[in-house]
Amino acid sequence: MSVRTSVIGLNSRGAALARAIAAAGHDVVVWDEAGVPAESVEDVRRVDSLQVAFTASLVLMCLEDYDAVQRVLGQAEPHVSADLVNLTSGTSEQAEQAAGWVQARGGHYLDGALMAHPEHVGQPETVLVYSGSREVFQRHQSSLAHLGGATYLGSAPGTAALYDVAMLNFAWATLIGFLQTTALLGTAQVQATTVAPLLTHWLSTTVTEVITDYAHQVDNHRYPGDQEWLELDAPLMDHLINAVRARGLDTALPELIKSLTDRGIDAGHGKDSFASLIEILRS
Amino acid sequence: MSVRTSVIGLNSRGAALARAIAAAGHDVVVWDEAGVPAESVEDVRRVDSLQVAFTASLVLMCLEDYDAVQRVLGQAEPHVSADLVNLTSGTSEQAEQAAGWVQARGGHYLDGALMAHPEHVGQPETVLVYSGSREVFQRHQSSLAHLGGATYLGSAPGTAALYDVAMLNFAWATLIGFLQTTALLGTAQVQATTVAPLLTHWLSTTVTEVITDYAHQVDNHRYPGDQEWLELDAPLMDHLINAVRARGLDTALPELIKSLTDRGIDAGHGKDSFASLIEILRS
Repeated sequence: MSVRTSVIGLNSRGAALARAIAAAGHDVVVWDEAGVPAESVEDVRRVDSLQVAFTASLVLMCLEDYDAVQRVLGQAEPHVSADLVNLTSGTSEQAEQAAGWVQARGGHYLDGALMAHPEHVGQPETVLVYSGSREVFQRHQSSLAHLGGATYLGSAPGTAALYDVAMLNFAWATLIGFLQTTALLGTAQVQATTVAPLLTHWLSTTVTEVITDYAHQVDNHRYPGDQEWLELDAPLMDHLINAVRARGLDTALPELIKSLTDRGIDAGHGKDSFASLIEILRS
Repeated sequence: MSVRTSVIGLNSRGAALARAIAAAGHDVVVWDEAGVPAESVEDVRRVDSLQVAFTASLVLMCLEDYDAVQRVLGQAEPHVSADLVNLTSGTSEQAEQAAGWVQARGGHYLDGALMAHPEHVGQPETVLVYSGSREVFQRHQSSLAHLGGATYLGSAPGTAALYDVAMLNFAWATLIGFLQTTALLGTAQVQATTVAPLLTHWLSTTVTEVITDYAHQVDNHRYPGDQEWLELDAPLMDHLINAVRARGLDTALPELIKSLTDRGIDAGHGKDSFASLIEILRS
Protein backbone atom coordinates (compact mmCIF):
# COMPACT_ATOMS: atom_id res chain seq x y z
CA MET A 1 0.00 0.00 0.00
CA SER A 2 1.41 3.36 -1.03
CA VAL A 3 -0.02 6.83 -0.73
CA ARG A 4 0.99 10.16 -2.16
CA THR A 5 0.75 12.44 0.89
CA SER A 6 0.40 11.83 4.62
CA VAL A 7 -0.52 14.41 7.20
CA ILE A 8 0.79 13.63 10.69
CA GLY A 9 -1.20 15.45 13.36
CA LEU A 10 -4.91 16.13 13.26
CA ASN A 11 -5.14 19.43 15.11
CA SER A 12 -6.99 22.23 13.36
CA ARG A 13 -3.91 23.16 11.30
CA GLY A 14 -3.17 19.57 10.32
CA ALA A 15 -6.79 19.00 9.34
CA ALA A 16 -6.67 22.17 7.22
CA LEU A 17 -3.52 20.91 5.48
CA ALA A 18 -5.13 17.52 4.76
CA ARG A 19 -8.28 19.17 3.44
CA ALA A 20 -6.32 21.46 1.10
CA ILE A 21 -4.33 18.55 -0.34
CA ALA A 22 -7.45 16.42 -0.73
CA ALA A 23 -9.32 19.32 -2.34
CA ALA A 24 -6.62 19.40 -5.01
CA GLY A 25 -7.55 15.81 -5.88
CA HIS A 26 -4.56 14.17 -4.27
CA ASP A 27 -4.56 10.90 -2.38
CA VAL A 28 -3.99 11.82 1.26
CA VAL A 29 -4.07 9.91 4.54
CA VAL A 30 -3.94 11.25 8.06
CA TRP A 31 -2.42 9.87 11.23
CA ASP A 32 -2.80 11.24 14.74
CA GLU A 33 -1.04 10.25 17.93
CA ALA A 34 -4.26 10.45 19.93
CA GLY A 35 -6.20 8.51 17.31
CA VAL A 36 -8.68 11.36 16.95
CA PRO A 37 -11.56 10.31 14.66
CA ALA A 38 -10.97 11.52 11.14
CA GLU A 39 -14.66 12.20 10.48
CA SER A 40 -13.88 15.88 10.58
CA VAL A 41 -11.82 15.61 7.41
CA GLU A 42 -13.87 14.51 4.42
CA ASP A 43 -12.35 12.51 1.57
CA VAL A 44 -9.39 11.64 3.75
CA ARG A 45 -8.57 8.19 5.10
CA ARG A 46 -7.22 7.82 8.57
CA VAL A 47 -4.50 5.23 8.98
CA ASP A 48 -3.64 3.59 12.28
CA SER A 49 -0.09 2.70 11.30
CA LEU A 50 2.56 5.37 11.50
CA GLN A 51 4.66 3.07 9.29
CA VAL A 52 2.06 3.28 6.52
CA ALA A 53 1.85 7.03 6.91
CA PHE A 54 5.60 7.24 6.44
CA THR A 55 5.53 5.34 3.15
CA ALA A 56 4.00 8.42 1.50
CA SER A 57 6.14 10.28 -0.98
CA LEU A 58 5.45 13.42 1.05
CA VAL A 59 4.94 13.47 4.82
CA LEU A 60 3.51 16.71 6.22
CA MET A 61 3.88 16.98 9.98
CA CYS A 62 2.00 19.56 12.05
CA LEU A 63 2.01 18.78 15.77
CA GLU A 64 1.33 20.75 18.95
CA ASP A 65 4.99 21.22 19.82
CA TYR A 66 8.45 19.72 19.45
CA ASP A 67 7.92 17.33 22.36
CA ALA A 68 5.28 15.71 20.19
CA VAL A 69 7.64 15.85 17.17
CA GLN A 70 10.27 13.95 19.16
CA ARG A 71 7.76 11.33 20.32
CA VAL A 72 6.34 10.75 16.85
CA LEU A 73 9.72 10.68 15.12
CA GLY A 74 11.01 8.26 17.77
CA GLN A 75 8.03 5.99 17.15
CA ALA A 76 8.53 6.22 13.38
CA GLU A 77 12.31 5.81 13.58
CA PRO A 78 12.68 2.77 11.37
CA HIS A 79 10.75 4.54 8.58
CA VAL A 80 11.94 8.13 8.56
CA SER A 81 13.71 7.98 5.19
CA ALA A 82 10.76 9.92 3.74
CA ASP A 83 10.53 13.48 2.44
CA LEU A 84 9.37 15.19 5.61
CA VAL A 85 7.93 18.71 5.78
CA ASN A 86 7.51 19.85 9.36
CA LEU A 87 5.07 22.72 9.94
CA THR A 88 5.08 22.42 13.74
CA SER A 89 5.67 25.81 15.43
CA GLY A 90 8.90 26.08 17.36
CA THR A 91 12.27 27.73 17.54
CA SER A 92 15.04 27.70 14.96
CA GLU A 93 17.08 25.51 17.29
CA GLN A 94 14.29 22.94 17.56
CA ALA A 95 13.94 22.85 13.78
CA GLU A 96 17.69 22.40 13.35
CA GLN A 97 17.75 19.59 15.90
CA ALA A 98 14.86 17.78 14.21
CA ALA A 99 16.51 18.22 10.81
CA GLY A 100 19.75 16.74 12.10
CA TRP A 101 17.96 13.77 13.62
CA VAL A 102 16.03 13.01 10.42
CA GLN A 103 19.02 13.49 8.14
CA ALA A 104 21.14 11.18 10.31
CA ARG A 105 18.56 8.46 9.62
CA GLY A 106 18.48 8.95 5.85
CA GLY A 107 15.43 11.19 5.69
CA HIS A 108 15.08 14.58 3.98
CA TYR A 109 13.87 17.44 6.14
CA LEU A 110 12.17 20.67 5.13
CA ASP A 111 10.91 22.99 7.83
CA GLY A 112 7.96 25.28 7.28
CA ALA A 113 6.03 28.05 8.96
CA LEU A 114 2.37 28.67 8.26
CA MET A 115 1.75 32.40 8.71
CA ALA A 116 -2.05 32.24 8.84
CA HIS A 117 -5.03 30.84 10.67
CA PRO A 118 -6.08 27.31 9.62
CA GLU A 119 -9.15 28.56 7.75
CA HIS A 120 -6.90 30.35 5.25
CA VAL A 121 -4.88 27.26 4.34
CA GLY A 122 -5.33 26.51 0.65
CA GLN A 123 -5.79 30.11 -0.47
CA PRO A 124 -3.10 31.33 -2.87
CA GLU A 125 -2.50 34.52 -0.81
CA THR A 126 -1.76 32.54 2.36
CA VAL A 127 1.93 32.78 3.19
CA LEU A 128 3.97 29.69 3.97
CA VAL A 129 7.74 29.85 4.16
CA TYR A 130 10.11 26.90 4.02
CA SER A 131 13.75 26.23 4.73
CA GLY A 132 15.96 23.17 4.80
CA SER A 133 16.20 20.57 2.04
CA ARG A 134 16.00 22.32 -1.33
CA GLU A 135 15.40 18.92 -2.96
CA VAL A 136 12.27 18.32 -0.89
CA PHE A 137 11.00 21.81 -1.68
CA GLN A 138 11.56 21.39 -5.41
CA ARG A 139 10.26 17.82 -5.56
CA HIS A 140 6.99 18.74 -3.84
CA GLN A 141 6.55 22.33 -4.90
CA SER A 142 3.32 21.59 -6.76
CA SER A 143 1.83 19.83 -3.71
CA LEU A 144 2.95 22.59 -1.35
CA ALA A 145 1.38 25.14 -3.70
CA HIS A 146 -2.02 23.70 -2.75
CA LEU A 147 -1.47 24.90 0.83
CA GLY A 148 -0.83 28.54 -0.17
CA GLY A 149 1.94 30.72 -1.53
CA ALA A 150 5.26 28.94 -0.95
CA THR A 151 8.54 30.81 -0.45
CA TYR A 152 11.84 28.97 0.02
CA LEU A 153 14.17 30.84 2.39
CA GLY A 154 17.32 28.74 2.08
CA SER A 155 18.95 25.56 3.19
CA ALA A 156 19.29 26.29 6.93
CA PRO A 157 16.42 24.36 8.55
CA GLY A 158 16.02 27.00 11.29
CA THR A 159 15.23 29.90 8.95
CA ALA A 160 11.50 29.28 8.59
CA ALA A 161 11.11 29.39 12.38
CA LEU A 162 13.25 32.52 12.48
CA TYR A 163 10.91 34.05 9.91
CA ASP A 164 8.03 33.42 12.28
CA VAL A 165 9.63 35.41 15.11
CA ALA A 166 10.92 38.06 12.67
CA MET A 167 7.36 38.62 11.44
CA LEU A 168 6.15 39.01 15.02
CA ASN A 169 8.78 41.71 15.44
CA PHE A 170 7.48 43.48 12.33
CA ALA A 171 3.89 43.18 13.52
CA TRP A 172 4.60 44.54 16.98
CA ALA A 173 6.69 47.44 15.67
CA THR A 174 3.96 48.41 13.21
CA LEU A 175 1.19 48.02 15.77
CA ILE A 176 2.95 49.94 18.54
CA GLY A 177 3.53 52.65 15.93
CA PHE A 178 -0.19 52.60 15.17
CA LEU A 179 -1.05 52.88 18.88
CA GLN A 180 1.38 55.76 19.42
CA THR A 181 0.09 57.62 16.36
CA THR A 182 -3.49 57.03 17.48
CA ALA A 183 -2.71 58.18 21.03
CA LEU A 184 -1.11 61.35 19.64
CA LEU A 185 -4.11 62.18 17.44
CA GLY A 186 -6.43 61.18 20.27
CA THR A 187 -5.13 64.18 22.21
CA ALA A 188 -6.81 66.27 19.49
CA GLN A 189 -10.06 64.27 19.81
CA VAL A 190 -9.48 62.43 16.53
CA GLN A 191 -11.10 58.98 16.69
CA ALA A 192 -8.96 55.91 15.98
CA THR A 193 -11.57 54.75 13.48
CA THR A 194 -11.17 58.04 11.60
CA VAL A 195 -7.41 57.56 11.30
CA ALA A 196 -7.23 53.80 10.71
CA PRO A 197 -8.49 53.80 7.08
CA LEU A 198 -5.95 56.52 6.20
CA LEU A 199 -3.13 54.61 7.88
CA THR A 200 -3.98 51.24 6.34
CA HIS A 201 -4.35 52.85 2.91
CA TRP A 202 -0.95 54.42 3.41
CA LEU A 203 0.54 51.03 4.38
CA SER A 204 -0.59 49.44 1.15
CA THR A 205 0.59 52.34 -1.03
CA THR A 206 3.42 54.63 0.12
CA VAL A 207 4.85 52.40 2.85
CA THR A 208 4.81 49.42 0.49
CA GLU A 209 6.76 51.45 -2.10
CA VAL A 210 9.28 52.61 0.51
CA ILE A 211 9.82 49.08 1.85
CA THR A 212 10.30 47.77 -1.68
CA ASP A 213 12.88 50.49 -2.31
CA TYR A 214 14.62 49.93 1.04
CA ALA A 215 14.88 46.19 0.38
CA HIS A 216 16.98 46.90 -2.72
CA GLN A 217 19.09 49.37 -0.76
CA VAL A 218 19.70 46.80 1.99
CA ASP A 219 20.67 44.07 -0.48
CA ASN A 220 23.01 46.48 -2.29
CA HIS A 221 24.49 47.89 0.96
CA ARG A 222 23.93 51.34 -0.53
CA TYR A 223 21.38 53.79 0.88
CA PRO A 224 21.02 56.76 -1.48
CA GLY A 225 19.37 59.64 0.37
CA ASP A 226 17.83 61.33 -2.63
CA GLN A 227 14.26 61.26 -1.22
CA GLU A 228 15.01 61.55 2.50
CA TRP A 229 18.15 61.25 4.60
CA LEU A 230 19.00 61.00 8.28
CA GLU A 231 20.03 64.63 8.74
CA LEU A 232 16.70 65.67 7.23
CA ASP A 233 14.81 63.23 9.48
CA ALA A 234 16.55 64.12 12.76
CA PRO A 235 14.96 67.56 13.39
CA LEU A 236 11.55 66.16 12.41
CA MET A 237 12.08 63.45 15.04
CA ASP A 238 12.86 66.10 17.63
CA HIS A 239 9.67 67.84 16.62
CA LEU A 240 7.80 64.55 17.02
CA ILE A 241 9.30 63.90 20.46
CA ASN A 242 8.33 67.41 21.56
CA ALA A 243 4.78 66.96 20.29
CA VAL A 244 4.48 63.60 22.05
CA ARG A 245 5.92 64.96 25.30
CA ALA A 246 3.82 68.14 25.20
CA ARG A 247 0.69 65.99 25.02
CA GLY A 248 1.72 63.90 28.02
CA LEU A 249 2.38 60.66 26.14
CA ASP A 250 5.19 58.13 26.51
CA THR A 251 8.17 59.24 24.40
CA ALA A 252 10.16 55.96 24.48
CA LEU A 253 9.33 54.88 20.90
CA PRO A 254 10.19 58.17 19.13
CA GLU A 255 13.24 58.57 21.38
CA LEU A 256 14.48 55.12 20.38
CA ILE A 257 14.08 55.99 16.69
CA LYS A 258 15.88 59.31 17.23
CA SER A 259 18.68 57.61 19.15
CA LEU A 260 19.25 55.09 16.33
CA THR A 261 19.21 57.99 13.86
CA ASP A 262 21.78 59.93 15.90
CA ARG A 263 23.99 56.85 15.94
CA GLY A 264 23.51 56.55 12.18
CA ILE A 265 24.58 60.16 11.65
CA ASP A 266 27.59 59.64 13.95
CA ALA A 267 28.52 56.61 11.86
CA GLY A 268 28.60 58.75 8.71
CA HIS A 269 25.09 58.04 7.33
CA GLY A 270 23.82 61.62 7.65
CA LYS A 271 23.19 61.92 3.90
CA ASP A 272 21.97 58.32 3.59
CA SER A 273 18.36 57.18 3.72
CA PHE A 274 16.61 55.86 6.84
CA ALA A 275 17.34 52.35 5.49
CA SER A 276 20.99 52.86 6.46
CA LEU A 277 19.92 52.33 10.09
CA ILE A 278 20.09 48.59 9.40
CA GLU A 279 23.87 49.06 9.75
CA ILE A 280 23.32 50.47 13.25
CA LEU A 281 20.98 47.61 14.22
CA ARG A 282 23.74 45.22 13.16
CA SER A 283 26.54 46.95 15.07
CA MET B 1 -12.86 90.98 -11.33
CA SER B 2 -13.74 87.85 -9.37
CA VAL B 3 -12.29 84.37 -9.52
CA ARG B 4 -13.38 81.10 -8.01
CA THR B 5 -10.06 79.77 -6.66
CA SER B 6 -6.64 81.30 -6.03
CA VAL B 7 -3.48 79.43 -5.30
CA ILE B 8 -0.93 81.43 -3.30
CA GLY B 9 2.56 80.05 -3.74
CA LEU B 10 3.98 78.58 -6.93
CA ASN B 11 6.37 75.97 -5.57
CA SER B 12 5.96 72.44 -6.93
CA ARG B 13 3.15 71.69 -4.47
CA GLY B 14 1.29 74.91 -5.19
CA ALA B 15 1.62 74.38 -8.94
CA ALA B 16 0.24 70.86 -8.52
CA LEU B 17 -2.74 72.22 -6.56
CA ALA B 18 -3.44 74.83 -9.25
CA ARG B 19 -3.18 72.23 -12.00
CA ALA B 20 -5.59 69.87 -10.24
CA ILE B 21 -8.18 72.61 -9.74
CA ALA B 22 -7.81 73.81 -13.34
CA ALA B 23 -8.04 70.24 -14.64
CA ALA B 24 -11.44 70.01 -12.99
CA GLY B 25 -12.58 72.90 -15.18
CA HIS B 26 -12.50 75.55 -12.48
CA ASP B 27 -11.39 79.13 -12.91
CA VAL B 28 -8.12 79.43 -11.02
CA VAL B 29 -5.45 82.10 -10.66
CA VAL B 30 -2.03 81.87 -9.06
CA TRP B 31 0.05 84.39 -7.18
CA ASP B 32 3.63 84.00 -6.04
CA GLU B 33 5.70 86.21 -3.77
CA ALA B 34 8.74 85.85 -6.01
CA GLY B 35 6.74 86.51 -9.15
CA VAL B 36 7.87 83.22 -10.63
CA PRO B 37 6.65 82.91 -14.24
CA ALA B 38 3.46 80.91 -14.42
CA GLU B 39 4.32 79.30 -17.76
CA SER B 40 4.79 76.03 -15.92
CA VAL B 41 1.09 75.87 -15.08
CA GLU B 42 -1.09 75.62 -18.17
CA ASP B 43 -4.62 77.02 -18.25
CA VAL B 44 -3.88 79.10 -15.19
CA ARG B 45 -3.60 82.85 -15.08
CA ARG B 46 -1.00 84.48 -12.93
CA VAL B 47 -2.11 87.62 -11.13
CA ASP B 48 0.27 90.27 -9.86
CA SER B 49 -2.09 91.60 -7.23
CA LEU B 50 -2.39 89.74 -3.95
CA GLN B 51 -5.60 91.72 -3.41
CA VAL B 52 -7.12 90.20 -6.55
CA ALA B 53 -5.99 86.75 -5.47
CA PHE B 54 -7.77 87.22 -2.16
CA THR B 55 -11.10 88.09 -3.81
CA ALA B 56 -11.47 84.41 -4.75
CA SER B 57 -14.17 82.45 -3.01
CA LEU B 58 -11.47 79.93 -2.05
CA VAL B 59 -7.85 80.83 -1.37
CA LEU B 60 -5.42 77.88 -1.27
CA MET B 61 -2.09 78.77 0.29
CA CYS B 62 0.97 76.55 -0.01
CA LEU B 63 4.22 78.31 0.89
CA GLU B 64 7.70 77.22 1.84
CA ASP B 65 7.24 77.82 5.56
CA TYR B 66 5.36 79.89 8.12
CA ASP B 67 7.75 82.83 7.79
CA ALA B 68 6.44 83.13 4.25
CA VAL B 69 2.86 82.68 5.51
CA GLN B 70 3.36 85.59 7.92
CA ARG B 71 4.84 87.80 5.21
CA VAL B 72 2.09 87.06 2.70
CA LEU B 73 -0.74 87.41 5.21
CA GLY B 74 0.75 90.67 6.46
CA GLN B 75 0.86 91.95 2.89
CA ALA B 76 -2.73 90.81 2.26
CA GLU B 77 -3.98 92.07 5.62
CA PRO B 78 -6.71 94.37 4.37
CA HIS B 79 -8.18 91.52 2.31
CA VAL B 80 -7.99 88.39 4.49
CA SER B 81 -11.75 88.00 5.01
CA ALA B 82 -11.63 85.13 2.49
CA ASP B 83 -12.07 81.39 2.98
CA LEU B 84 -8.44 80.43 3.40
CA VAL B 85 -7.09 76.86 3.21
CA ASN B 86 -3.45 76.74 4.26
CA LEU B 87 -1.49 73.68 3.10
CA THR B 88 1.91 75.03 4.17
CA SER B 89 3.87 72.46 6.22
CA GLY B 90 4.47 73.47 9.81
CA THR B 91 3.72 72.72 13.43
CA SER B 92 0.35 72.63 15.15
CA GLU B 93 1.30 75.78 17.03
CA GLN B 94 2.09 77.64 13.81
CA ALA B 95 -1.25 76.57 12.31
CA GLU B 96 -3.09 77.70 15.45
CA GLN B 97 -1.34 81.03 15.42
CA ALA B 98 -2.14 81.63 11.74
CA ALA B 99 -5.76 80.61 12.34
CA GLY B 100 -6.06 83.07 15.23
CA TRP B 101 -4.56 85.87 13.15
CA VAL B 102 -6.90 85.26 10.20
CA GLN B 103 -10.00 84.86 12.36
CA ALA B 104 -9.23 88.06 14.25
CA ARG B 105 -9.42 89.84 10.89
CA GLY B 106 -12.74 88.32 9.83
CA GLY B 107 -11.33 85.50 7.71
CA HIS B 108 -12.14 81.80 7.88
CA TYR B 109 -9.18 79.46 8.30
CA LEU B 110 -8.88 75.78 7.44
CA ASP B 111 -5.51 74.11 7.83
CA GLY B 112 -4.51 71.17 5.68
CA ALA B 113 -1.73 68.64 5.27
CA LEU B 114 -0.91 67.07 1.93
CA MET B 115 0.44 63.57 2.61
CA ALA B 116 1.93 62.93 -0.83
CA HIS B 117 4.43 64.13 -3.37
CA PRO B 118 3.19 66.89 -5.70
CA GLU B 119 2.85 64.52 -8.67
CA HIS B 120 0.08 62.63 -6.83
CA VAL B 121 -2.08 65.69 -6.22
CA GLY B 122 -5.41 65.25 -7.95
CA GLN B 123 -5.58 61.47 -7.63
CA PRO B 124 -8.53 60.26 -5.56
CA GLU B 125 -6.28 57.99 -3.43
CA THR B 126 -4.02 60.89 -2.40
CA VAL B 127 -4.58 61.70 1.26
CA LEU B 128 -5.20 65.26 2.40
CA VAL B 129 -6.39 65.98 5.93
CA TYR B 130 -7.94 69.21 7.13
CA SER B 131 -8.77 70.82 10.45
CA GLY B 132 -10.11 74.18 11.54
CA SER B 133 -13.19 75.88 10.14
CA ARG B 134 -15.84 73.25 9.46
CA GLU B 135 -17.76 75.82 7.40
CA VAL B 136 -14.84 76.29 5.00
CA PHE B 137 -14.42 72.53 4.67
CA GLN B 138 -18.10 72.00 3.93
CA ARG B 139 -18.43 75.00 1.63
CA HIS B 140 -15.48 73.93 -0.55
CA GLN B 141 -15.61 70.17 -0.15
CA SER B 142 -16.27 69.64 -3.88
CA SER B 143 -13.27 71.81 -4.83
CA LEU B 144 -11.01 70.15 -2.27
CA ALA B 145 -12.09 66.76 -3.63
CA HIS B 146 -10.26 67.64 -6.86
CA LEU B 147 -6.97 67.64 -4.91
CA GLY B 148 -7.41 64.11 -3.53
CA GLY B 149 -9.29 62.28 -0.78
CA ALA B 150 -10.31 64.83 1.87
CA THR B 151 -10.69 63.94 5.54
CA TYR B 152 -11.83 66.51 8.11
CA LEU B 153 -10.18 65.93 11.49
CA GLY B 154 -12.01 68.48 13.63
CA SER B 155 -12.22 72.14 14.47
CA ALA B 156 -8.78 72.59 16.13
CA PRO B 157 -6.62 74.23 13.44
CA GLY B 158 -3.49 72.43 14.71
CA THR B 159 -4.77 68.90 14.18
CA ALA B 160 -3.85 68.59 10.49
CA ALA B 161 -0.23 69.48 11.31
CA LEU B 162 -0.32 67.05 14.23
CA TYR B 163 -1.50 64.38 11.79
CA ASP B 164 1.57 65.05 9.68
CA VAL B 165 3.95 64.35 12.57
CA ALA B 166 1.80 61.44 13.80
CA MET B 167 2.10 59.83 10.36
CA LEU B 168 5.87 60.27 10.44
CA ASN B 169 5.85 58.41 13.75
CA PHE B 170 3.85 55.58 12.17
CA ALA B 171 6.18 55.48 9.16
CA TRP B 172 9.35 55.36 11.24
CA ALA B 173 7.98 52.70 13.60
CA THR B 174 6.92 50.52 10.66
CA LEU B 175 10.20 51.07 8.79
CA ILE B 176 12.45 50.45 11.78
CA GLY B 177 10.42 47.25 12.33
CA PHE B 178 11.09 46.33 8.71
CA LEU B 179 14.82 46.98 9.11
CA GLN B 180 15.03 44.96 12.32
CA THR B 181 13.10 42.05 10.76
CA THR B 182 15.30 42.20 7.68
CA ALA B 183 18.48 42.33 9.79
CA LEU B 184 17.27 39.30 11.75
CA LEU B 185 16.54 37.27 8.60
CA GLY B 186 19.75 38.55 7.05
CA THR B 187 21.67 36.59 9.69
CA ALA B 188 20.25 33.50 7.95
CA GLN B 189 21.32 34.82 4.52
CA VAL B 190 17.75 35.69 3.51
CA GLN B 191 17.77 38.63 1.09
CA ALA B 192 15.72 41.72 1.94
CA THR B 193 14.17 41.54 -1.53
CA THR B 194 12.98 38.00 -0.76
CA VAL B 195 11.23 39.10 2.43
CA ALA B 196 9.86 42.49 1.31
CA PRO B 197 7.02 41.17 -0.91
CA LEU B 198 5.85 38.88 1.91
CA LEU B 199 5.94 41.72 4.44
CA THR B 200 4.16 44.24 2.22
CA HIS B 201 1.52 41.66 1.32
CA TRP B 202 1.06 41.04 5.01
CA LEU B 203 0.69 44.77 5.70
CA SER B 204 -2.15 45.10 3.22
CA THR B 205 -3.97 41.99 4.48
CA THR B 206 -3.50 40.78 8.07
CA VAL B 207 -2.00 43.95 9.54
CA THR B 208 -4.73 46.03 7.92
CA GLU B 209 -7.38 43.78 9.51
CA VAL B 210 -5.70 43.98 12.92
CA ILE B 211 -5.40 47.78 12.78
CA THR B 212 -9.05 48.09 11.77
CA ASP B 213 -10.00 45.89 14.72
CA TYR B 214 -7.71 47.73 17.14
CA ALA B 215 -9.17 51.10 16.08
CA HIS B 216 -12.60 49.97 17.26
CA GLN B 217 -11.09 48.66 20.49
CA VAL B 218 -9.33 52.00 21.11
CA ASP B 219 -12.49 54.03 20.45
CA ASN B 220 -14.50 51.72 22.74
CA HIS B 221 -11.81 51.66 25.46
CA ARG B 222 -12.25 47.87 25.52
CA TYR B 223 -9.54 45.48 24.35
CA PRO B 224 -10.96 41.95 24.19
CA GLY B 225 -8.09 39.46 24.10
CA ASP B 226 -9.91 36.68 22.29
CA GLN B 227 -7.33 36.41 19.45
CA GLU B 228 -4.15 37.40 21.31
CA TRP B 229 -3.46 38.92 24.70
CA LEU B 230 -0.47 40.41 26.52
CA GLU B 231 0.30 37.35 28.65
CA LEU B 232 0.39 35.26 25.47
CA ASP B 233 2.62 37.80 23.72
CA ALA B 234 5.14 38.29 26.55
CA PRO B 235 6.98 34.93 26.29
CA LEU B 236 7.06 35.26 22.48
CA MET B 237 8.70 38.66 22.95
CA ASP B 238 11.31 37.10 25.24
CA HIS B 239 11.92 34.52 22.53
CA LEU B 240 12.30 37.33 19.98
CA ILE B 241 14.73 39.26 22.19
CA ASN B 242 16.81 36.09 22.67
CA ALA B 243 16.88 35.41 18.93
CA VAL B 244 17.89 39.02 18.20
CA ARG B 245 20.59 39.00 20.88
CA ALA B 246 21.92 35.57 19.88
CA ARG B 247 22.45 36.90 16.35
CA GLY B 248 24.38 39.94 17.57
CA LEU B 249 21.76 42.55 16.66
CA ASP B 250 20.55 45.59 18.59
CA THR B 251 17.77 44.54 21.00
CA ALA B 252 16.44 48.02 21.87
CA LEU B 253 13.29 47.82 19.73
CA PRO B 254 12.03 44.40 20.92
CA GLU B 255 13.03 45.31 24.48
CA LEU B 256 10.98 48.49 24.31
CA ILE B 257 7.95 46.53 23.10
CA LYS B 258 8.45 43.96 25.87
CA SER B 259 8.83 46.68 28.49
CA LEU B 260 5.55 48.32 27.42
CA THR B 261 3.92 44.89 27.49
CA ASP B 262 5.22 44.19 31.01
CA ARG B 263 3.82 47.54 32.12
CA GLY B 264 0.52 46.61 30.48
CA ILE B 265 0.39 43.31 32.35
CA ASP B 266 1.26 45.08 35.60
CA ALA B 267 -1.58 47.51 34.95
CA GLY B 268 -4.04 44.60 34.71
CA HIS B 269 -4.18 44.15 30.90
CA GLY B 270 -2.69 40.63 30.88
CA LYS B 271 -5.80 39.13 29.28
CA ASP B 272 -6.37 42.15 27.01
CA SER B 273 -5.16 42.51 23.44
CA PHE B 274 -1.96 44.29 22.41
CA ALA B 275 -4.16 47.33 21.64
CA SER B 276 -4.52 47.89 25.41
CA LEU B 277 -0.94 49.21 25.37
CA ILE B 278 -2.37 52.55 24.22
CA GLU B 279 -3.34 52.99 27.89
CA ILE B 280 0.32 52.59 28.84
CA LEU B 281 1.47 55.05 26.18
CA ARG B 282 -0.97 57.56 27.67
CA SER B 283 0.09 57.07 31.29
